[in-house]
Amino acid sequence: MTESGREGGSVLLRGWDDYERGSLLLTAAPRAGLGHAALRTRSPEALERRVAALRADGVEVTRHEGSLGHGTAYRFRDADGHLFELYYDTEWYEAPDALRPALKNQAQRFPARGVNARRIDHFNLLAVDVRACREFFQRNLGLRCTERIELDDGTEAGMWLTATNKSYDFAYTREAHGHHGRFHHVTFALDSREDVLRAADVFLEAGVPIETGPHKHAVQQTFFLYVYEPGGNRVEVANAGARLILAPDWPTITWTETERKKGQAWGLKTVETFHTHGTPTLDDLA
Amino acid sequence: MTESGREGGSVLLRGWDDYERGSLLLTAAPRAGLGHAALRTRSPEALERRVAALRADGVEVTRHEGSLGHGTAYRFRDADGHLFELYYDTEWYEAPDALRPALKNQAQRFPARGVNARRIDHFNLLAVDVRACREFFQRNLGLRCTERIELDDGTEAGMWLTATNKSYDFAYTREAHGHHGRFHHVTFALDSREDVLRAADVFLEAGVPIETGPHKHAVQQTFFLYVYEPGGNRVEVANAGARLILAPDWPTITWTETERKKGQAWGLKTVETFHTHGTPTLDDLA
Amino acid sequence: MTESGREGGSVLLRGWDDYERGSLLLTAAPRAGLGHAALRTRSPEALERRVAALRADGVEVTRHEGSLGHGTAYRFRDADGHLFELYYDTEWYEAPDALRPALKNQAQRFPARGVNARRIDHFNLLAVDVRACREFFQRNLGLRCTERIELDDGTEAGMWLTATNKSYDFAYTREAHGHHGRFHHVTFALDSREDVLRAADVFLEAGVPIETGPHKHAVQQTFFLYVYEPGGNRVEVANAGARLILAPDWPTITWTETERKKGQAWGLKTVETFHTHGTPTLDDLA
Amino acid sequence: MTESGREGGSVLLRGWDDYERGSLLLTAAPRAGLGHAALRTRSPEALERRVAALRADGVEVTRHEGSLGHGTAYRFRDADGHLFELYYDTEWYEAPDALRPALKNQAQRFPARGVNARRIDHFNLLAVDVRACREFFQRNLGLRCTERIELDDGTEAGMWLTATNKSYDFAYTREAHGHHGRFHHVTFALDSREDVLRAADVFLEAGVPIETGPHKHAVQQTFFLYVYEPGGNRVEVANAGARLILAPDWPTITWTETERKKGQAWGLKTVETFHTHGTPTLDDLA
Repeated sequence: MTESGREGGSVLLRGWDDYERGSLLLTAAPRAGLGHAALRTRSPEALERRVAALRADGVEVTRHEGSLGHGTAYRFRDADGHLFELYYDTEWYEAPDALRPALKNQAQRFPARGVNARRIDHFNLLAVDVRACREFFQRNLGLRCTERIELDDGTEAGMWLTATNKSYDFAYTREAHGHHGRFHHVTFALDSREDVLRAADVFLEAGVPIETGPHKHAVQQTFFLYVYEPGGNRVEVANAGARLILAPDWPTITWTETERKKGQAWGLKTVETFHTHGTPTLDDLA
Repeated sequence: MTESGREGGSVLLRGWDDYERGSLLLTAAPRAGLGHAALRTRSPEALERRVAALRADGVEVTRHEGSLGHGTAYRFRDADGHLFELYYDTEWYEAPDALRPALKNQAQRFPARGVNARRIDHFNLLAVDVRACREFFQRNLGLRCTERIELDDGTEAGMWLTATNKSYDFAYTREAHGHHGRFHHVTFALDSREDVLRAADVFLEAGVPIETGPHKHAVQQTFFLYVYEPGGNRVEVANAGARLILAPDWPTITWTETERKKGQAWGLKTVETFHTHGTPTLDDLA
Repeated sequence: MTESGREGGSVLLRGWDDYERGSLLLTAAPRAGLGHAALRTRSPEALERRVAALRADGVEVTRHEGSLGHGTAYRFRDADGHLFELYYDTEWYEAPDALRPALKNQAQRFPARGVNARRIDHFNLLAVDVRACREFFQRNLGLRCTERIELDDGTEAGMWLTATNKSYDFAYTREAHGHHGRFHHVTFALDSREDVLRAADVFLEAGVPIETGPHKHAVQQTFFLYVYEPGGNRVEVANAGARLILAPDWPTITWTETERKKGQAWGLKTVETFHTHGTPTLDDLA
Repeated sequence: MTESGREGGSVLLRGWDDYERGSLLLTAAPRAGLGHAALRTRSPEALERRVAALRADGVEVTRHEGSLGHGTAYRFRDADGHLFELYYDTEWYEAPDALRPALKNQAQRFPARGVNARRIDHFNLLAVDVRACREFFQRNLGLRCTERIELDDGTEAGMWLTATNKSYDFAYTREAHGHHGRFHHVTFALDSREDVLRAADVFLEAGVPIETGPHKHAVQQTFFLYVYEPGGNRVEVANAGARLILAPDWPTITWTETERKKGQAWGLKTVETFHTHGTPTLDDLA
């Protein structure tokens, strides 16, 4: 990750091939968690349409200026209370001389250090009512749900949404403790599974706590590794191989409770903290 | 590659995660080359719009039924004379029991043999007038040009077009001998660069002629390996890492003649046959 | 694995680059387990010296002819009762035409199918008294102990021995149930960690039960994957990267009980079956 | 590479898992090339035996004290005039706190930067009479020749020698210009082919000239990448997969001129500079 801006208590960070100036804005705060999630629309017109759709759905949308790294944003809250932004105007990253890449079709020099995070991939939020959140985004942003989990009692335990050919741009999993607005993790894409393994060694040596992995998810089949950053937020580095959702009419895959109990693709059991740890933490909220 | 259908002199083949029944239709013919290229639209309405746009542009479009693997197609020729099809109705692949995957979000069992071709990635055609072809597809199909090569004399020597977040869905490079309708190669996506290296060993042992690679392209940065199939067509297996074109306003990258003379990303010189070998071959056309 | 011989109830198997005719002899038996382990000496003279050393140590050594794949062997039992053979005369593998490799410095064609097991790497046996076994082999075969585990109460829980630059040629771990002569696993070396990941997919699709992994061992740092073959024996596929023991005076690394409780390199907890499952199984022995 | 010592005009460098204090001693000099090559014997007795063997063969051997990183050395010149040292007493690397590894069976912290050179692997020297050099080392040091190249006219064009299970510890290739004592390259082992590919990107971005690769050698089958360090010496990073020479009676593989003309394993032609560039350079020697 490279720092690409700083303002007030915030630092803007980026993967080496993120095309925008930054993809992760760290802001000093009394406790860990998600400040807001920002999504870029495909065009100024798409931005107008989405804002209109949200308002027509009864959602309060406010205009927000002065974001570090992008232009005018429109803010709203999802069905669980997480703060979102939509924007179109953005700052393209301009590499300073020292970070100018050898190949001009890449945003920034390939780094010789760290874990080689190429670009932001997705984020995952906790929600008390996952189904309501999914329907909110499908209805108001036109996102497609590629995979989901439905428990035996009909509860929706997870859902993965996309606006691109990536199999998901963000996901929600169930908050079992009744708290709203919690954050599960943010994920950066690495170029190979080997890079994920190498990241595990880099994290091990740096004393970064590894929660689980490397292993392959059954859902979405990404090769994953989860760690905690010093503030307590969970961060994932992952690789999806050449898997993309290229079918325009991809039918949502629904996983059952029995299927999910099998654990991850090669049998790793899902660690308990994956269902409990989020930010703010339960201790923060107690 | 798995066979998924056969009809007359044709055999339908597929990568193990292609969602459609087939992605490559081999047809017995007196000489190698491209029969036709078929593109699936995002919706039935998109299909209608594209057919209308082509006709409005003066292109002759004919309806074609009975394709193995998909429904009604609309046929036309590009500015260089290659035969294209557009279609929306398709057959989703249904794996027979023996090829049913362990994970239900994948089309077919991961193969324990061969080179692990996951899905078709793109094809590359030769054209006498590359610029005319690019403009044809941009004008009539609304495709985006992500990268291109322009020689010092202004000639367009190559161009890469996409309708997705893949950095290209097909490409054209310059035909220097004045022949129309020639085929350069078809590419299947593998999951990792390691898979490409392993494919090189598999091809070596199987006596499949390797033309060039493995190496990394400067243009589009894919890790590539080119071989010839027994009929003489060039086939590529490649991996793009986590590189995607996620910017909706991605500006076309234009490579100069000087830049291209540097060879591939790590310095490999482009082999001479890459500029001369296509199918039908020059011998076929002599 | 390729079959390279068959005799009576036995089938000889080999990795694609094992230089000997076979490296694994499967023999029909009422229950799973180790028939015998065979080690090749560096020379005929070394064989004589080792036999003499064993006899001088009071070990009964018998001459054995007629092994499938190698010549005269000398048989003895280790301190836990496992049957061992020493031999020097062997049959070098001669690939039949269909399996002749493209490069003549390799034993057999690189396989386009299966998990690409290059060569046998090591085996692991259970022993009631690990320390006695280690001392037996150090005293009589002159092997070096590269790493070992010593519990807080002084019990030796594991030890890794080598006669080469590989960090171990075989290992022993503690049998906690008082049974002698049990087998833990046999391991084949793959060329990369990516190959181990690919093997996980191959095993998953083939319905081969995965016990644990892929992950990286803390002890010896190999990247591992453990499965059960249909007879119940545990099989490992592993990759050691470029790690070799090149120091002639390498001091044994001793791991403490506290260190081992941390689990594997990146934190994976050692699965319970790893301490209980061996062959014959506890049920076989009940 | 980490610096582990400095004295006079010399800097001692090491791979992150070299067990000795250093593996590469850089010394300021008016022109590039090999100062000397140092080999560690297996025991003090082996050192005495080798010195005696050299002297019995009429080779002048002188005692040398004060080497940075190891104890008393015995110096001699090979049949081409390169300076060699034999030593046994060495300094084991002791990592300072900041470089102490998470796992105690590794010499130094896995680096989060650079090309992850684990350990020195081998070096390659140019010789006017390769055969004489091979015979010199076989006769006096008891090394084994695992592979060699013999041209149609009987000239020996290359040979690879080992004292370990690595397929070679050093190699010689033919000097076609009649100069003695030239250096071809030094090689560091990386853990995977992926690491070699990543190194190519790191070198590309750092402006380090890449001579050839990544590709797979036909001889010895290592996956290689050659670059030039700023002083002009050629440096290789390579990975051998799980290939080892485990047969104590491995027969030398002899490659013919015809076989070598096929190029490297997957067909890459050997670049011309590989036969001409050495240090001192031909310009230095003109």
